[in-house]
Amino acid sequence: MPKLWDDSIATHRHAVRAATLDATAALVAERGLTGVTMSEVAKRAGLGRATLYKYFPDVDAILVAWHERQVGDHLQQLTDVWAETGRLEAVLETYALICHGHPDAEPAASLHRSEHVARARDHLVDFFAGLMTDVRDDVPPKELATYCVHALTAAGAVPSKAAVRRLVAVTLAGLRGEPAG
Amino acid sequence: MPKLWDDSIATHRHAVRAATLDATAALVAERGLTGVTMSEVAKRAGLGRATLYKYFPDVDAILVAWHERQVGDHLQQLTDVWAETGRLEAVLETYALICHGHPDAEPAASLHRSEHVARARDHLVDFFAGLMTDVRDDVPPKELATYCVHALTAAGAVPSKAAVRRLVAVTLAGLRGEPAG
Repeated sequence: MPKLWDDSIATHRHAVRAATLDATAALVAERGLTGVTMSEVAKRAGLGRATLYKYFPDVDAILVAWHERQVGDHLQQLTDVWAETGRLEAVLETYALICHGHPDAEPAASLHRSEHVARARDHLVDFFAGLMTDVRDDVPPKELATYCVHALTAAGAVPSKAAVRRLVAVTLAGLRGEPAG
Repeated sequence: MPKLWDDSIATHRHAVRAATLDATAALVAERGLTGVTMSEVAKRAGLGRATLYKYFPDVDAILVAWHERQVGDHLQQLTDVWAETGRLEAVLETYALICHGHPDAEPAASLHRSEHVARARDHLVDFFAGLMTDVRDDVPPKELATYCVHALTAAGAVPSKAAVRRLVAVTLAGLRGEPAG
């Protein structure tokens, strides 16, 4: 098959996938996770239901793909902030603000596929573990990262951005260790 | 109706409820939340299905009642530890060990009834907020409590009791504030 044809199929697949996940994101925002159906997604994405079923066997598969893309986007954001600033605090604040903006990110556990959600969280923990250099050294980096990810999800439950920044300060104090005296 | 008769009905109701929730706890432990069915619960509890349906309309109602009883038990444990020791650290460690022993307590969010789970978490946060006396004063007690509850659920994701104790130390350092210097 000529290369051009291959490329065009790949582009088409990519476009269908992107349209599906964009439609899913909009539906989740409007109706919550349980409001997503194959028919609605197809309609919003401008696809025939038969086409949609060729790409995704069921709603769960769509939700998992949507969640994976979302987690990937967030990891990219965190990676960028780290590359730009080199400051752990800036990365923590970015993650906390993401959690604050997606208070439902947690009950995405109601995706049922808890192995999937657990894997996504593992990626995050691994990423944070890599940043644990200028912190207390009496606790393994991976444990500190696990603490971070859990503590910062509290940002989904606090009332304001000022409260999010206080949460970041508290979490960071934990990472740095006991106050002297 | 004579008082004795009233008492005996109340006792019977209480016994049916307790048997149902014990059976549910066993099923959840064996098969996870999705493994709980009305028939299995009735069988394990030694009840007729018709009787069970008189008490609980569906599995969701049973799971909510089971989760409420569990949260109530945990709050009682924490209250006892506080009464006995008066030490925040001891309460935090008890809660962290509970989370370590119930790593599934979190995805109990997959109970769907997220309002119910949110309410249960609110009770916990209120309880912890009441203990926030000997800690940093630049952050409202309720926010510190929210931080605590989230940070300590990380205990469900760490590998050992030693790691749980390190998590408690890290969380506590956050509550106490920045190290001097």
